Amino acid sequence: MENFTFYSPTYFVFGKNSETQTGDMIKRFGGSKVLIHYGGGSVVRSGLLDRVKESLKSGNIEYVELGGVKPNPRSGLVYEGIELCRKEKVDFILAVGGGSTIDSSKAIAAGVVYDGDFWDFYSGKLIEEALPVGTILTIAAAGSEGSPDSVITKEEGMFKRGATGDAIRPKFSILNPALTQTLPPFQSAAGITDIMAHLYERYLTNSTEVEVTDRLIEALLLTMKHEGPRVIENPDNYEARANIMWAGMMAHNNSCGVGRTQDWNSHDIEHELSALYDCAHGAGLAVTMPAVFRYVMKHNVMRFAQAAVRVWGCSMDFEHPEVTALEGIKALSDFLTGLGMPKNFSELGAKEEDIPALVESLCCGNGRDGKLSGFVTLDKEDCTKIYKMMI
Amino acid sequence: MENFTFYSPTYFVFGKNSETQTGDMIKRFGGSKVLIHYGGGSVVRSGLLDRVKESLKSGNIEYVELGGVKPNPRSGLVYEGIELCRKEKVDFILAVGGGSTIDSSKAIAAGVVYDGDFWDFYSGKLIEEALPVGTILTIAAAGSEGSPDSVITKEEGMFKRGATGDAIRPKFSILNPALTQTLPPFQSAAGITDIMAHLYERYLTNSTEVEVTDRLIEALLLTMKHEGPRVIENPDNYEARANIMWAGMMAHNNSCGVGRTQDWNSHDIEHELSALYDCAHGAGLAVTMPAVFRYVMKHNVMRFAQAAVRVWGCSMDFEHPEVTALEGIKALSDFLTGLGMPKNFSELGAKEEDIPALVESLCCGNGRDGKLSGFVTLDKEDCTKIYKMMI
Repeated sequence: MENFTFYSPTYFVFGKNSETQTGDMIKRFGGSKVLIHYGGGSVVRSGLLDRVKESLKSGNIEYVELGGVKPNPRSGLVYEGIELCRKEKVDFILAVGGGSTIDSSKAIAAGVVYDGDFWDFYSGKLIEEALPVGTILTIAAAGSEGSPDSVITKEEGMFKRGATGDAIRPKFSILNPALTQTLPPFQSAAGITDIMAHLYERYLTNSTEVEVTDRLIEALLLTMKHEGPRVIENPDNYEARANIMWAGMMAHNNSCGVGRTQDWNSHDIEHELSALYDCAHGAGLAVTMPAVFRYVMKHNVMRFAQAAVRVWGCSMDFEHPEVTALEGIKALSDFLTGLGMPKNFSELGAKEEDIPALVESLCCGNGRDGKLSGFVTLDKEDCTKIYKMMI
Repeated sequence: MENFTFYSPTYFVFGKNSETQTGDMIKRFGGSKVLIHYGGGSVVRSGLLDRVKESLKSGNIEYVELGGVKPNPRSGLVYEGIELCRKEKVDFILAVGGGSTIDSSKAIAAGVVYDGDFWDFYSGKLIEEALPVGTILTIAAAGSEGSPDSVITKEEGMFKRGATGDAIRPKFSILNPALTQTLPPFQSAAGITDIMAHLYERYLTNSTEVEVTDRLIEALLLTMKHEGPRVIENPDNYEARANIMWAGMMAHNNSCGVGRTQDWNSHDIEHELSALYDCAHGAGLAVTMPAVFRYVMKHNVMRFAQAAVRVWGCSMDFEHPEVTALEGIKALSDFLTGLGMPKNFSELGAKEEDIPALVESLCCGNGRDGKLSGFVTLDKEDCTKIYKMMI
């Protein structure tokens, strides 16, 4: 096990009607003038936004609002949010939505108190200061409600990049599984896929002797395997939604990823797809992961065999561990398509002729040096082969 | 799943030589004059105390010290610590040791800023204010390094009772598995047993639909099953020590216990034993748990069968689930005795003729109302039977 630090100070309020505590939470963490940041659509239609405003009003908390966050959130709205917060002297950012809204909120929070261009943080600069952020989560997926991370797409060049820093960890996150019961099955499935990807990216490690985190990751994957089909079958299943929601947070606050190297190549390879085609990140991951895993499997067959046996219930083929390893990857792939996720480029809306451009942006865009590091280091040729496996 | 809040803001520094960061951590959390609180013995002999003082000196942090914490820490030393801190105007408590030292430190931290008798907190009053506490952990066991809890024994009456409150959650905890390599096997085994008890107490729930936390608890039990025998066989095994250390924290910061009712009757029944006979808490639990589990098993046979199958690898007897359930309890008991833990009253130094007094203190001492609530509500007759099963 490697040395590490772990810090997850977010205050979680979990359960039915937990959004009624929004005002109290903002006061607890010192907010007096709030930016309510959201996407639109269901947050407005469901009446959630009104309920949140009500909670703020009854706590005498001032607010301004900025809607319009889109999936794969863009830099343009972040600049707008930063300007609005400065003008209105906002001291707290409240995200009401999913990972895109939370990530956009984190970017604004970091940008408001920074003299330079906020994109510096998405080009490698650590976020050390930010306005406090709170979240009300409406989809179990990105894990941004408990993470120090944010992913934004820069419109100029369509680069989709991440930033990180303890300063953007949410002060509080309100998790009401009932808010996710109205999600369409495709979005639920994309969220489930994203959560499972966060687990696999941590599982694919080059560290040894990491039994505790292996077991924790497997526990969360087993949860997703059990609960995923239940929410697709019955979107109103509160209990399944609740189990998935806590698993989604635990999958990405890094309590199960400490002390080990991690991968994240599947995420990077997928980000190019959702940046270019604006597909759902989870849907892109459903196509990306099996291809990446088959491509890198030989680097550590036993790791994939372990997942196959412990998570997917495969019988170990002791004479041919690679057979078991492949069986586990196929089980993952079948599981995701069974939830309604796409399985290839065309179902994603991606095109074979774009592969050279995807690879160029992936390996060399926004200052990258031609290679992706992770479980296996991948160069442009590797990435080209992987994208071709997805066709 | 039940509604819940979860808050675990401790900053963890984990790994080799992490204690060299003590001074930095105290500064980060605003300490300027520190009480170093410890037991004695190995902390002094190993040179750890000197290294910690060095780290404080090099950060120009003043300190006073108070050693002498004993296992099953006593109220007397807490009063002494409170007085010392007030006199010396201490603003930060640093615990260097195991659960006893950390719990004693938490009690002092709460007592210093409280006008009344600190024992009020151990009679049911919530701790809402305390001096900041940091810890350097020397044994994986109590989980106090990441919990809001403290257990102290009141010398007058020998009541062993717990207190809780977010205010006593450590600001930071330094976890260096190498510091645990010098522990004698018996102490290591007692620590392992305590960790497993924290997991079982959460596993025994009356809440339904708690797949995610069931799986997380099982993951940590599987880790203990794998790593426990490795440290007994080879106390120098850093990697096994590291896995156990993180599992011990995760077992008790409640990330795997949220949203479900919990038990804690085994802990209460054991506390009487360690209070009266001054035995190791873990050793007492090794004797207590199998008796309690056999006694309450019929309340939910499937829960015990699930642990038997998922953790202990038993084959499910679908026609007679109670056979599997019992097999799992026996597997736990055999595992603990295999580590060198006692299996009955006499090995603990406990006496049958004391049972009436144990039951009286357990059920009625320090204001209790004659019953223990938990997975199953137990009255004096139940507790008498359970103690008799341990003979």
